[in-house]
Amino acid sequence: MKRLAILGSTGSIGRSALAVVDAHPDKLSVVALAAGDNDARLAAQVQRYRPLMVAMASGEGIDRLRSACGDSSPAMAQGQEGLIAVATHPSVDIVICASAGTAGLEAVLAAIDAGKTIALANKEVLVMAGALVMARARERGVSVLPVDSEHNAVHQCLHGRARTEVRRLILTASGGPFREYSAAALERVGPDEALRHPTWQMGRKITIDSATLMNKGLEVIEAHWLFGVAADQIDVVIHPQSIVHSLVELTDGSMIAQLGVTDMRLPIQYACSYPERWDGALPTLDLTRAGRLDFLAPDYERFPCLTLAYRALRAGETFPVVLNAANEVAVEAFLDGKLGFTSIPRVIERAMNGHSPEHVLTIEVIRRVDLWAREQARAMAAELELIL
Amino acid sequence: MKRLAILGSTGSIGRSALAVVDAHPDKLSVVALAAGDNDARLAAQVQRYRPLMVAMASGEGIDRLRSACGDSSPAMAQGQEGLIAVATHPSVDIVICASAGTAGLEAVLAAIDAGKTIALANKEVLVMAGALVMARARERGVSVLPVDSEHNAVHQCLHGRARTEVRRLILTASGGPFREYSAAALERVGPDEALRHPTWQMGRKITIDSATLMNKGLEVIEAHWLFGVAADQIDVVIHPQSIVHSLVELTDGSMIAQLGVTDMRLPIQYACSYPERWDGALPTLDLTRAGRLDFLAPDYERFPCLTLAYRALRAGETFPVVLNAANEVAVEAFLDGKLGFTSIPRVIERAMNGHSPEHVLTIEVIRRVDLWAREQARAMAAELELIL
Repeated sequence: MKRLAILGSTGSIGRSALAVVDAHPDKLSVVALAAGDNDARLAAQVQRYRPLMVAMASGEGIDRLRSACGDSSPAMAQGQEGLIAVATHPSVDIVICASAGTAGLEAVLAAIDAGKTIALANKEVLVMAGALVMARARERGVSVLPVDSEHNAVHQCLHGRARTEVRRLILTASGGPFREYSAAALERVGPDEALRHPTWQMGRKITIDSATLMNKGLEVIEAHWLFGVAADQIDVVIHPQSIVHSLVELTDGSMIAQLGVTDMRLPIQYACSYPERWDGALPTLDLTRAGRLDFLAPDYERFPCLTLAYRALRAGETFPVVLNAANEVAVEAFLDGKLGFTSIPRVIERAMNGHSPEHVLTIEVIRRVDLWAREQARAMAAELELIL
Repeated sequence: MKRLAILGSTGSIGRSALAVVDAHPDKLSVVALAAGDNDARLAAQVQRYRPLMVAMASGEGIDRLRSACGDSSPAMAQGQEGLIAVATHPSVDIVICASAGTAGLEAVLAAIDAGKTIALANKEVLVMAGALVMARARERGVSVLPVDSEHNAVHQCLHGRARTEVRRLILTASGGPFREYSAAALERVGPDEALRHPTWQMGRKITIDSATLMNKGLEVIEAHWLFGVAADQIDVVIHPQSIVHSLVELTDGSMIAQLGVTDMRLPIQYACSYPERWDGALPTLDLTRAGRLDFLAPDYERFPCLTLAYRALRAGETFPVVLNAANEVAVEAFLDGKLGFTSIPRVIERAMNGHSPEHVLTIEVIRRVDLWAREQARAMAAELELIL
């Protein structure tokens, strides 16, 4: 029996993780849950899974949760401390980190220190603090298993092979809804249009990141840290059907790919079962029904966010922190109707241009640079907004 | 340094194997070569690779070879005995078995007894004698590594995974030149048309087998023996681009695929380097240039040879021997213009219907059934020829 903590249990990934638990009650149990502010959904999860501990972002959330759960309330905690308490609970074996944004960073580091296996669904953790997190994991002998479908695919393709066999990773990208838009048409894209993403049902932020290809850029940075490969060894290919989840090119020119239906339960279950693989009631891919798979080169001119992500990875140090923070601010401004779609990369680029990099030695450095980049990005977005 | 014997060195696979040796002179050396009757080409190979021993099918071939090689002649032998002497030469580590048809069977068994690693490019060996060959290999602790691109792909996909993780193998097939022909159009196909195969440059027999899908049927039987999976766990999918060389479906629904350019040096090198993987000057697949991959279900009605192969595998015992022998006779009659394309499966089916199966306990049983099936098939082909 593997015992889980789920950070972000009321979100899309968190609920898929609980569906995996439902399918394997003999192999997985829920020990601790953390959510942001969705007390109603968390209360239902508490009723069903009876965790030993729960956490929410705010004290008000906790209060509402406690009154909903009544006598059956588990131990409760709030804020950053609560997230860390859930992630380091002594009964936990695996921490599924699916909390949004940068909130999970301290909790992941604490979980590593406590020797927990990390199943990572949160890109920001490695984009911001890959150097810190992976060094700490190596030190403590802790596994960081990817839940993102692309990295999970790479992990499956690499399994059993020596790193010296690997020439290149190829991350697939759906290409987003504007794959075929001209540069002029992209200028006119608004938030409503951008939120209609064809392949996956996702949150608003990641939907915009998919449309700008920044999501893939963040994944390139994540892949660098997870698999220890240089930027030049990571390529992106547009694959609109999202059936090939990623590929690995080996030194003899052979390629290994992982394919499957687009269902997050598959990578989550793999991360939970690893190094085993469990049967499951998961849907199976029928290649002949899929029929056709397309592959295209990404257009780095029309989608400069991908170029910026490579640039941040190559520049290293705190540049990815700036990329990520400026992107969050710019996407928020875009969703608020205050920034044009094609101004998102402009904001990020200006923040990066003004940055004096530092070594990623501590969380404090990261937090400071993150704040600085957000301020810069806000100022630039406001400036661009005047032009809009 | 791994030392090679190549059975069938003057054929297409044999020459590709020598190209792999050329690319890795520090890792591979040629110890012994066997060819059928192409003495001119074998003489050139002797000049270049200086093997310790060579064999040819006939004494006349050997005589011509000896006069071509002059003083630099290596040890020479002929016929079945010569093939076995090459395959069991004491200095040999790996035997690449690429001889055509059923001639290589005894040599492969002798090589296994002598503890040589087998790199198998000859389907007939496992189709006819899979039970014998694999039992013997297990007994002696000898590896049988597949060189056929589909089985080589499966081997790469399975590497590092437990057999209990495997749900299904999916062999890809180009579908042959008549993939889109109606049943009526297939009736009218002649040998010249059938010999124009789109994807690979191959011998005449295998080109017809690709057009009837019997080649894929033989590969299904081969996969059964190589990987120890039942007929129900082996599927075939038509993939006209021949870029995905095969796939494995795992128990959780995830699929692993191997992709690459269609170049036989790739699987040959893999079989020689295994369990390592060597860099090489082999061409690399550019997925974005390939652009599009299609997958279709095979049509078992229009291509009954595939159905017959599954039937032979399920019936077991000597049925695959009959399938293979009757197919060889029928394809020869078709190439001679004496049998219709759609009569090939009719001949095979009739031979199978008249067969009383035996256990595959000895080579003698196989040879006897093989002869019986050829006689039956010849009689049936002659009968159908009268109708033609």
